[in-house]
Amino acid sequence: MPASPIRKLVPFAEAAKKKGIKIYHLNIGQPDIETPPEILDAVRNSDFKILEYSHSAGNESYRKKLVEYYRSVNINVDPNEIIITTGGSEAILFGFMSCLDAGDEVIIPEPFYANYNGFAVTAGVTVKPITSSIQSGFALPPIEEFEKLISPKTKAIVICNPNNPTGYLYSREELEVLKTIIIKHDLYLFSDEAYREFCYEGKHFSAMQLEGAENNVILMDTISKRYSACGARIGALVTHNKEVLNTAMKFAQARLSPPEFGQILGEAAVDIPANYFEKPKAEYQLRRDTIVKRLNNIPGVFCPNPGGAFYAMASLPIDDADVFCQWLLESFDYNGATLMLAPATGFYGTEGLGKNEVRLAYVLNVDAINNAMDCLEKALEIYPGRKK
Amino acid sequence: MPASPIRKLVPFAEAAKKKGIKIYHLNIGQPDIETPPEILDAVRNSDFKILEYSHSAGNESYRKKLVEYYRSVNINVDPNEIIITTGGSEAILFGFMSCLDAGDEVIIPEPFYANYNGFAVTAGVTVKPITSSIQSGFALPPIEEFEKLISPKTKAIVICNPNNPTGYLYSREELEVLKTIIIKHDLYLFSDEAYREFCYEGKHFSAMQLEGAENNVILMDTISKRYSACGARIGALVTHNKEVLNTAMKFAQARLSPPEFGQILGEAAVDIPANYFEKPKAEYQLRRDTIVKRLNNIPGVFCPNPGGAFYAMASLPIDDADVFCQWLLESFDYNGATLMLAPATGFYGTEGLGKNEVRLAYVLNVDAINNAMDCLEKALEIYPGRKK
Repeated sequence: MPASPIRKLVPFAEAAKKKGIKIYHLNIGQPDIETPPEILDAVRNSDFKILEYSHSAGNESYRKKLVEYYRSVNINVDPNEIIITTGGSEAILFGFMSCLDAGDEVIIPEPFYANYNGFAVTAGVTVKPITSSIQSGFALPPIEEFEKLISPKTKAIVICNPNNPTGYLYSREELEVLKTIIIKHDLYLFSDEAYREFCYEGKHFSAMQLEGAENNVILMDTISKRYSACGARIGALVTHNKEVLNTAMKFAQARLSPPEFGQILGEAAVDIPANYFEKPKAEYQLRRDTIVKRLNNIPGVFCPNPGGAFYAMASLPIDDADVFCQWLLESFDYNGATLMLAPATGFYGTEGLGKNEVRLAYVLNVDAINNAMDCLEKALEIYPGRKK
Repeated sequence: MPASPIRKLVPFAEAAKKKGIKIYHLNIGQPDIETPPEILDAVRNSDFKILEYSHSAGNESYRKKLVEYYRSVNINVDPNEIIITTGGSEAILFGFMSCLDAGDEVIIPEPFYANYNGFAVTAGVTVKPITSSIQSGFALPPIEEFEKLISPKTKAIVICNPNNPTGYLYSREELEVLKTIIIKHDLYLFSDEAYREFCYEGKHFSAMQLEGAENNVILMDTISKRYSACGARIGALVTHNKEVLNTAMKFAQARLSPPEFGQILGEAAVDIPANYFEKPKAEYQLRRDTIVKRLNNIPGVFCPNPGGAFYAMASLPIDDADVFCQWLLESFDYNGATLMLAPATGFYGTEGLGKNEVRLAYVLNVDAINNAMDCLEKALEIYPGRKK
């Protein structure tokens, strides 16, 4: 079981803090946007007397409300096609466990969300990475590259759209290409759409909207980012495939039920007016514009413009991103401050890739981002492992 | 992946309810005892603005408080020997995933909590059941029986103490026998102590109190039953074994964090005065005394006196418990009421065992239990599959 690539720097951050250094945390996707107060109030105003198990698939009232939410984003599902999960994490786990056998292979465009590795280990499945390049802005690799990797053991393709860690927003055309592949080779398409609400370039097209692929597509969803409610641990596995739902329900029953308070919060969230997202989206877009511009203004740095989510990937003029990110915490400060980044190596399945790339989560306000970019600029000027 | 043996009767119960029949639910361990209002209030009075991820091991403040709780039940641990999990379910999953490889074997005295099967499937592990008999009240089988089952693939023994489904409370002497076996054969001992607070015959002795087995014992715990807080989904994996903790932390990091509201509730629960348990315990004991007496007064029925938890296992004069439990819901009522039981077959790993046994969860008040026993008595008089 691999260690989390982001969390391994934590001890160095703690040591820096003890020295009194301020750290700009661009390393994790914990939004600083406030959770909508009305959904916290839904929990705080609840008045039941016994905190009971819910239905293993989640409260029926919540699943019915979610149907409304999905309809609002052009995804048509029934309440019984939704299994409420403990975070998006459990949706990924249930999806893998229900569709894949030990020894099966899944293809994932890299760089990819590092925790897919953990769930693949749990399911005994091998991840076959297919490289997307920073030069292309991390667009979907061409169909031929997928076909090269497909073997009799290949059972699924996993995408995250918009993408963590790259911020890439897949186009409808790219989704249609994926549909061709999964239909031709009878594969599942796992679509992680945690960041659906945060698209800045064009409109989100969900894998659930692919016509004719209803039995292939498994949506892995979460309310964590949508409503800045990461601690609720509420997600959902959504699919039209009855067989997958039946198997996933057995895993759901074995763990009894998802958390009740989080379900109350999630149910209340469906009633938030659609224009709620305008403000956080505008805020994230402003941050993205700021960070991308600042990054590309630093000599030797390249950052493609991410179309969604709240992550940017940048290549830096450095020898080794892991060494650099540790050095930032251990040996550097600019006016008493430094920044924490996620080295990209942990997001690549192919050994040796991502050594000069980092992921930046723009979850801080514009002033903090500017301060962090001042630090990065200074750091790159004096970093001993800087490349010319 | 096996279906839940209890939940498969649910459609028949729903059909009976639609016909207007009242059902006494003795089939599941959902306590009817009210959740202590002060711990619900801790959640309702919380005043944070962003519902963030917690530490993957759970909030440090909660882990520190839990140390106090464990000290109060004579278990000495550090905060960093505790990983907060999403229910006891996740503690079982993390324990299995961290200690066992695919193909390994675990020995579990049967009848056992059916969901161990689900987590064993997830971990790719084979369950080797060792039969405990209703005649002995489901006491621990003799040491020779364990030794017969131990192979080079055997990595662990799993116990639930006090036991679900049997209610059996293992004695200190039985725990010492288990210690001998696990030390001799270098096995893990997984101890599920969800019902620790509910012991009516003698005192609970935890596997964590076994001296010299510190690196072997993994405690799988939950607040679900302790505080009637099943929907909080808060449990804990507790062990002195650093290697297991390190591995379990990787699984914990992959799923990010346990639910925040449940942790707030769990932390507040540690401050509940110890005498809080007297009332629910006395209530459960009264129910136990009622149900056991009523059962043993029915001709052909035998129910050993359970020492803990809130379950009783009974043998009935019937052909097939699965058929009987379905018949109770489908074809029987007494004055417009019937009862729902859990057929014991789902709790046995050995095919064919438990066919004349049922589990009764005494989670209803004494009046309801008496009414349910009236139903059972009448049912057994007229059930077509009754044995003489």
